[in-house]
Amino acid sequence: MKIDLNCDLGESFGRYVLGDDAGIMPHISSVNIACGAHAGDPTIMRKTVRLALEHHVAIGAHPGYPDLQGFGRRKMNFDPQEVEDFILYQLGALSAFIQAEGGNLIHVKPHGALYNQASVDRAMAEAICRGVALFSQDLILVGLAGSALLEMGRKHSLPVAAEGFPDRGYQPDGNLTPRGLPGSLVTDPETIAENAARLCRDGIKIIAGQTEEVLRIDTLCLHGDHPHAAETAARVRERLEEKHIKIQSLEKA
Amino acid sequence: MKIDLNCDLGESFGRYVLGDDAGIMPHISSVNIACGAHAGDPTIMRKTVRLALEHHVAIGAHPGYPDLQGFGRRKMNFDPQEVEDFILYQLGALSAFIQAEGGNLIHVKPHGALYNQASVDRAMAEAICRGVALFSQDLILVGLAGSALLEMGRKHSLPVAAEGFPDRGYQPDGNLTPRGLPGSLVTDPETIAENAARLCRDGIKIIAGQTEEVLRIDTLCLHGDHPHAAETAARVRERLEEKHIKIQSLEKA
Amino acid sequence: MKIDLNCDLGESFGRYVLGDDAGIMPHISSVNIACGAHAGDPTIMRKTVRLALEHHVAIGAHPGYPDLQGFGRRKMNFDPQEVEDFILYQLGALSAFIQAEGGNLIHVKPHGALYNQASVDRAMAEAICRGVALFSQDLILVGLAGSALLEMGRKHSLPVAAEGFPDRGYQPDGNLTPRGLPGSLVTDPETIAENAARLCRDGIKIIAGQTEEVLRIDTLCLHGDHPHAAETAARVRERLEEKHIKIQSLEKA
Amino acid sequence: MKIDLNCDLGESFGRYVLGDDAGIMPHISSVNIACGAHAGDPTIMRKTVRLALEHHVAIGAHPGYPDLQGFGRRKMNFDPQEVEDFILYQLGALSAFIQAEGGNLIHVKPHGALYNQASVDRAMAEAICRGVALFSQDLILVGLAGSALLEMGRKHSLPVAAEGFPDRGYQPDGNLTPRGLPGSLVTDPETIAENAARLCRDGIKIIAGQTEEVLRIDTLCLHGDHPHAAETAARVRERLEEKHIKIQSLEKA
Repeated sequence: MKIDLNCDLGESFGRYVLGDDAGIMPHISSVNIACGAHAGDPTIMRKTVRLALEHHVAIGAHPGYPDLQGFGRRKMNFDPQEVEDFILYQLGALSAFIQAEGGNLIHVKPHGALYNQASVDRAMAEAICRGVALFSQDLILVGLAGSALLEMGRKHSLPVAAEGFPDRGYQPDGNLTPRGLPGSLVTDPETIAENAARLCRDGIKIIAGQTEEVLRIDTLCLHGDHPHAAETAARVRERLEEKHIKIQSLEKA
Repeated sequence: MKIDLNCDLGESFGRYVLGDDAGIMPHISSVNIACGAHAGDPTIMRKTVRLALEHHVAIGAHPGYPDLQGFGRRKMNFDPQEVEDFILYQLGALSAFIQAEGGNLIHVKPHGALYNQASVDRAMAEAICRGVALFSQDLILVGLAGSALLEMGRKHSLPVAAEGFPDRGYQPDGNLTPRGLPGSLVTDPETIAENAARLCRDGIKIIAGQTEEVLRIDTLCLHGDHPHAAETAARVRERLEEKHIKIQSLEKA
Repeated sequence: MKIDLNCDLGESFGRYVLGDDAGIMPHISSVNIACGAHAGDPTIMRKTVRLALEHHVAIGAHPGYPDLQGFGRRKMNFDPQEVEDFILYQLGALSAFIQAEGGNLIHVKPHGALYNQASVDRAMAEAICRGVALFSQDLILVGLAGSALLEMGRKHSLPVAAEGFPDRGYQPDGNLTPRGLPGSLVTDPETIAENAARLCRDGIKIIAGQTEEVLRIDTLCLHGDHPHAAETAARVRERLEEKHIKIQSLEKA
Repeated sequence: MKIDLNCDLGESFGRYVLGDDAGIMPHISSVNIACGAHAGDPTIMRKTVRLALEHHVAIGAHPGYPDLQGFGRRKMNFDPQEVEDFILYQLGALSAFIQAEGGNLIHVKPHGALYNQASVDRAMAEAICRGVALFSQDLILVGLAGSALLEMGRKHSLPVAAEGFPDRGYQPDGNLTPRGLPGSLVTDPETIAENAARLCRDGIKIIAGQTEEVLRIDTLCLHGDHPHAAETAARVRERLEEKHIKIQSLEKA
């Protein structure tokens, strides 16, 4: 049994520091790096790429809406062509740093509102897939387990990876409980580690029509901006290793 | 005898239209496309790349300071590392569209204040060269004839091309007369065409210490945002062809 | 009989020119000036305020979403508190220029997606009203005739003015036909002038449940970014004057 | 003997938190609030104004260059008219929140690169003064002791206040040692408190030509983004009170 541990990092901007990148990088197998739209700037991107390569962490792009003030979490009414173009832009920008530092771009995971929309909105999901596929058919598309994004990714012949969230609550249909609602966030490291192990073993059970279905998980998302993010990451890694679950980055099926 | 005709296009932004891209593209051999910092946005970039490919125009990147309101013409006090990182970012972003549309990135020409600083400031020129070289040693670096940028480009083993401006006034040291000063801008298409032919034939004579020197010109810059930009471009092309000067895009020496 | 003629101006940004402000200003009685979020910048704002005062045109604020690339036309998922705060910010910023130039701020009209949301979404409409009322209880709130915005404005004891669009199509419920759909835009100056006169005389007939209702119009919006915007404005003014409809700016009831 | 203690706060942006506003506010007599250009956003501005009023701290505007990524610390080549317009814009925006919350705008202090330029560049200093005076002749202009800004402020009949920095090194001409150079920053709270008491008592001795001169200090700047900022602020206040120096906000002469 194996699992990928991913985290969104490189979310600082200019003087503004967000997240404990150096503390978390040693514990994860994949990193999603912000691309200068909802967070990150060229200097931050370069440093984060470098840090990832030092720790042999697989690098992915984390494109989002161009809304720094809202951190890419406010849904914006982009049309699909705009989404496709912004995806290409951000993939290209991050890719330049990865290439300059001698690494490879392995995966893509949309951020925030874009991720959430792409989970349920097929037109948006397709726009993202078109942008990714135009950049490279080899990029692994990371999306919510059971989401429209993964469905569209398969349709566009992209390798896909199903993501699970050990620190978020789930609704019966497999979608995340929206932030702000009760049970949306788990903060206790012990509980998060427990959830992580369970997600690896059991996946996510959802109600699809009359029947129950199980969504398998390929990668677990750890959040880098919690107060005890590095400690939580270490705890999750420890727990998974105790259970003989191997932590390794995504690879094409 | 031959010369490249280049123009800065793709400078629109969202609803804001700048320049007659469609009118000028047929007349030039190289285009410098804004990369979303001082001008341009992902959707504009993609359209401009497409338009260039339709007209078999060689594509270059036109990176600038991230100052849309000042159109990248206000000098900003970036340190060299920031410049290097912003260059990489913008090269990567544009490159994604070129690759998606099936073209190649041929050259790089800094924009506005960055161009002017790199003409005289070696640290800034080196930062640009490092960014370009990290992206690709094959990119042709376009800079002011006689500038620090070209000198540093040669030092970094980049192919370089010397640019001349048929619609701008020159100072005795070979630098452009700053915008706003008398004689800084020529607007009459006939005079611009005449200047173009002369720059091809004679280069730019400058006073370097006690002696006169001649700077050869590889590429002429036409401006795309003049009222009669397309007409001027057509006139310049016509005049050069009358003089049996072949118009063709830059190639590595 | 009398009517106000308003137009959204001051929508240029840096080097980017949008609309024929100088051509239109002489024909209107009220101007809505962009406040640096979806369009406009401090220098543009100041010039537009000056131009309005020269032509004795009543000045209003035209706040929008902070999305220059989307020109404030893309719905953004702001929460009501954010909307209230952005309204205050933009009112204050514009107000500084009006005060510096010796004028008065008379009215407020939300822009683009904010206008459209406030037409139907009461929480958003209330947030705008709170922002406006905190700034001044004397500002006249301009909104779509029959909209939630006007309803909420009345609830917050703000003077309100109902707006009609002679160059836009209406749906049976009184909302504008969304841009992009057939019939959403009228471009012929003659038809626009005819619509203007009709809107003054007859208002807008809407179907409200089983009964027909008539919405009275206090102000007509002319668009400043059409190719023949100045000509259209002149034609509308002429037609209204032929029909003995007096053109004058809004005043408190 | 009395002194004002000021601090730059409200420098967070969206999700990005900078500085310990709540920890520092109780210890100061004046606050300089960022206005959404180099830092701050409408929601942050409103909260900071509220916090200041709760603690009876005098509110000032802290306008800066529109360069969030560079935090307003990168010199930008604005022309004086642009500076004047940006000052007005930011004063107006902040003022709206102060008015909404029932407070008064007392002073203005330019931020970062703008502050530094205005210390030595008279044209820039005048532009700032024009912007401030257009907004209100009653605003107290805060600038570096001995600076061109204060000189120009007096010329424009603005009340002025001379600022000293207990945590920064000074050069013999009275300018601050630029950040990054040795001795530019003092971080030990004890030394800062000592410097504060000395600045109150002795002012700053500078070499002006052949003679020594003493610059009196009206207000001391405490930095809010140091690791131990709140502790330092408390220590400074304590030390000053021990020395019977009264801490009170600026007032017009």
